[in-house]
Amino acid sequence: MAFANFHGLRALQISSRESIFNHGSCHTRTDTSNSRCFAVKACSKKPDQNIHLESKLNSVLDSVKWDEKGLAVAIAQNVDSGAILMQGFANREALATTIASKKATFYSRSRSSLWIKGETSLNFINVHDIFLDCDRDSIIYLGKPDGPTCHTGAETCYYTSVFDALDHQPQVEENNKLALTTLYSLESTLSRRKEELSSPQQGKPSWTKRLLLDDKLLCKKIREEADELCRTLEENEDESRSVSEMADVLYHEMVLLIRRGLKFEDVLEVLRCRFTQSGIEEKNNRKPKIIN
Amino acid sequence: MAFANFHGLRALQISSRESIFNHGSCHTRTDTSNSRCFAVKACSKKPDQNIHLESKLNSVLDSVKWDEKGLAVAIAQNVDSGAILMQGFANREALATTIASKKATFYSRSRSSLWIKGETSLNFINVHDIFLDCDRDSIIYLGKPDGPTCHTGAETCYYTSVFDALDHQPQVEENNKLALTTLYSLESTLSRRKEELSSPQQGKPSWTKRLLLDDKLLCKKIREEADELCRTLEENEDESRSVSEMADVLYHEMVLLIRRGLKFEDVLEVLRCRFTQSGIEEKNNRKPKIIN
Repeated sequence: MAFANFHGLRALQISSRESIFNHGSCHTRTDTSNSRCFAVKACSKKPDQNIHLESKLNSVLDSVKWDEKGLAVAIAQNVDSGAILMQGFANREALATTIASKKATFYSRSRSSLWIKGETSLNFINVHDIFLDCDRDSIIYLGKPDGPTCHTGAETCYYTSVFDALDHQPQVEENNKLALTTLYSLESTLSRRKEELSSPQQGKPSWTKRLLLDDKLLCKKIREEADELCRTLEENEDESRSVSEMADVLYHEMVLLIRRGLKFEDVLEVLRCRFTQSGIEEKNNRKPKIIN
Repeated sequence: MAFANFHGLRALQISSRESIFNHGSCHTRTDTSNSRCFAVKACSKKPDQNIHLESKLNSVLDSVKWDEKGLAVAIAQNVDSGAILMQGFANREALATTIASKKATFYSRSRSSLWIKGETSLNFINVHDIFLDCDRDSIIYLGKPDGPTCHTGAETCYYTSVFDALDHQPQVEENNKLALTTLYSLESTLSRRKEELSSPQQGKPSWTKRLLLDDKLLCKKIREEADELCRTLEENEDESRSVSEMADVLYHEMVLLIRRGLKFEDVLEVLRCRFTQSGIEEKNNRKPKIIN
């Protein structure tokens, strides 16, 4: 599960120029942290637990292979859609701050200071988990953004396709598009088809447009495709048939979402909330369709 | 669309110590490219087109803000699942090689040389598109891996959760898990429930296990949930009802995939192949359910 509920450090606060670590585990990086030594200050009432937690935190921070400038690459990824939102760098203080605050925090090389993504725009990235790579010199902040991540207002900072720039004529070289993975590329296409419906139509409409214009046809297809998917199991058809029928039903269901002006990411958020809740919370909050 | 078919450079080859650029656009990075000056050699028969393409390629390569070592961060992402596979660095030569070969290529700082991911393991990452961020100093290689990306055999290099390490007891600190986004975290949970079925069951089985053990119940639920999703449109229910019902039907459909031993990524691959094919290829290859 990618969504461990990490409550232990919720009560910890980060402060500057102050440390409760008196055993040499506070690392000062004069070149990257503006001579500040971060400190994790425990607020809990159980000192033994705090010392244990601080020890673990320092062990994790020590395990990162910081480069000669005390930095590691930090990538922020949308926990639901998987979109890579931005990439920056983290120093020890930035990672410790992210762990404690659950807000993606970076070290700005140009300003030589810590910055919490969203501190100006209020578009914070709320971190659900943090991952280190096998070399321990690269970090993923897996989180949910409060709004567009890029300073340009784009959802992510990656909107310049190299292949588009090479393929297209000079006058259309700047047709920005986001780096979308398969499901979101499909969603973007469906959304464009919907927008095109407001313009005068030429020729025979595409299948997607026909579905978008005809609720009866769309619902008939969803029910049909769901039935066909079930029959691949009931009639023990080849596995590839299940994959193909699942692709069919998913496509039609996504057309319904677009028809209603909804985003697939919203569906994923609902799923995530359901299966990270405890059984009791789940039962209190919704009808009995528990994922467990 | 994230899947521009970029054919222009398919006929271009990269060679070392050789250049057809005589106009100063070949950048030598002695500190990072082992004194090699990359060259893009055209094989096409239309010299005018080649010069135009080379000019565009150099324009793109020039636009990247290479750091003081001639490097930029390069992140490889699975085009279907969105999983971040690995992160390395690219220099000008590595990016040019990736563009021409469509295999994710990096610059190894430890070996001071170019390396094509997969050159030893044969687990290449087949690049479908390349994105630059707003600052032009960070690159995404959006591609499909031939096999596990990590040298450890793990699917991705990110399998160490910081929150798990902080939350757990020392003896279970090393329980590696991949950095999974919502859909794949759900898939992983469903897969674990299936594995648990081979052990003796205690107490009342979870809903997922009941579905996995009873094909009739599973198919009944998929048909029911698909119907409920349709009714949110037909009866013009609140949008949030469509999101909730879509989450329900998707969960049950994913249980069917797990029941059959299939991966959601396979479904996405089918969808991607469908909507990146031309209409003619599409018609020739499959039954008439064209996504357009």
